[in-house]
Amino acid sequence: MPTFKLTLEYDGSNYAGWQRQPSHPTIQAAIEEVLERIAQVRIPIVGAGRTDAGVHALGQVASFKTTRELAPYQWLRASNSYLPRDISVRSVEQVPDSFHARYSARGKQYDYHILNRSEHSPLQRHRAWTIYRSLDVARMSEAAARLVGTHDFSSFEGSPTDNENPHCHLQHLDVKQLGETIVIAAYADRFLKQMVRAIIGTLVEVGLQKRTVESMETILDARHRSAAGQTAPPHGLYLMRVEY
Amino acid sequence: MPTFKLTLEYDGSNYAGWQRQPSHPTIQAAIEEVLERIAQVRIPIVGAGRTDAGVHALGQVASFKTTRELAPYQWLRASNSYLPRDISVRSVEQVPDSFHARYSARGKQYDYHILNRSEHSPLQRHRAWTIYRSLDVARMSEAAARLVGTHDFSSFEGSPTDNENPHCHLQHLDVKQLGETIVIAAYADRFLKQMVRAIIGTLVEVGLQKRTVESMETILDARHRSAAGQTAPPHGLYLMRVEY
Repeated sequence: MPTFKLTLEYDGSNYAGWQRQPSHPTIQAAIEEVLERIAQVRIPIVGAGRTDAGVHALGQVASFKTTRELAPYQWLRASNSYLPRDISVRSVEQVPDSFHARYSARGKQYDYHILNRSEHSPLQRHRAWTIYRSLDVARMSEAAARLVGTHDFSSFEGSPTDNENPHCHLQHLDVKQLGETIVIAAYADRFLKQMVRAIIGTLVEVGLQKRTVESMETILDARHRSAAGQTAPPHGLYLMRVEY
Repeated sequence: MPTFKLTLEYDGSNYAGWQRQPSHPTIQAAIEEVLERIAQVRIPIVGAGRTDAGVHALGQVASFKTTRELAPYQWLRASNSYLPRDISVRSVEQVPDSFHARYSARGKQYDYHILNRSEHSPLQRHRAWTIYRSLDVARMSEAAARLVGTHDFSSFEGSPTDNENPHCHLQHLDVKQLGETIVIAAYADRFLKQMVRAIIGTLVEVGLQKRTVESMETILDARHRSAAGQTAPPHGLYLMRVEY
């Protein structure tokens, strides 16, 4: 059966996350509804990452199989004409049958946006986490460097499940400041649930002098969520791209 | 009476513009309501520019006079704690009594954001005007250069009034491309009603090859709104700063 790969952008503000749920609007449900409208048959899709409620995406990837014979550009045009304005398909490609958006993924990049200023931001209020006190970005950057590598990230896992492998290879964790905006880019082969947000919350505590740079090792060694900092809010997080 | 200058940021999406109106929420009304709550007396404010419904601001300026003895930082903190999340006071300064946000203004800068891509944009849908067909930015830039200078801008005025001076000194009209985003920055001593949006709509028609670069002179000479292009939508427009 022909297999298609969708690359998606969305504003997660009005959704209960990616994953289909019985009584809340989700991104997956919105897209499946549109595909069903086009194909006149239910087409289940698989997402590369299950983004949480309020999390955005510039490069989420989803895949589906169908016998409906449409060219990629026809899927693209038809989907975008039916999708709500807060979800958009950026590209559609036909891929080998073996392709699976989740299992074939080799890595993912998330960006997190922090606004460091003393007043709330009307224009960024659903797009970045505003930290009112001044952050020491150099300290955050040093702490971030200590998390890079292959580690057991249990201390940064939202709701741990017994049978999940807690090891991830975090290849990059770069902290960049552009004016009052701080962008933290994380690239790993895989991420645990709410891992990026737990890392960001912890780095912010380092930036506010509440934790030391050196404590990162202690946190990793603890392998318990209580060792790390708070979970950063979802609205600063963006799934940027998925590598295959 | 002490006079204060407020610098404001807002997301104009949920407002019927700056100017107070009887039955619609406006930015001016929202701020006056908060000042009244702080001072326990009605304090009318004057805005530098009357932004239209949906137009945003990063540097709108407003002024007010009051006998209420509060320091600038007290006005700032109290205002931001009461204001809705889509309006923010960036700074408060005490200024000479002669200061008037509108009459003292020597110039204003507006930026207009266009997104030039073939799909709608979830994350920018209230922040930029999406043009789906490819724009010739070099042509737009050439046309923009022909509008710079002191001219009668009647052809770019939304709803002309008989007694208004139609001459403006447009000092800059710069077109810059950053990836799929095109930012047009306009600086003038004064702007007529909907002038920036009429200029942008016209430049987009030049970028789509519907008008020539040379037609800018003809449009200016016509001194009639029908000579120029469509009015660009408000949600791509930002009042960036006001010079005094």
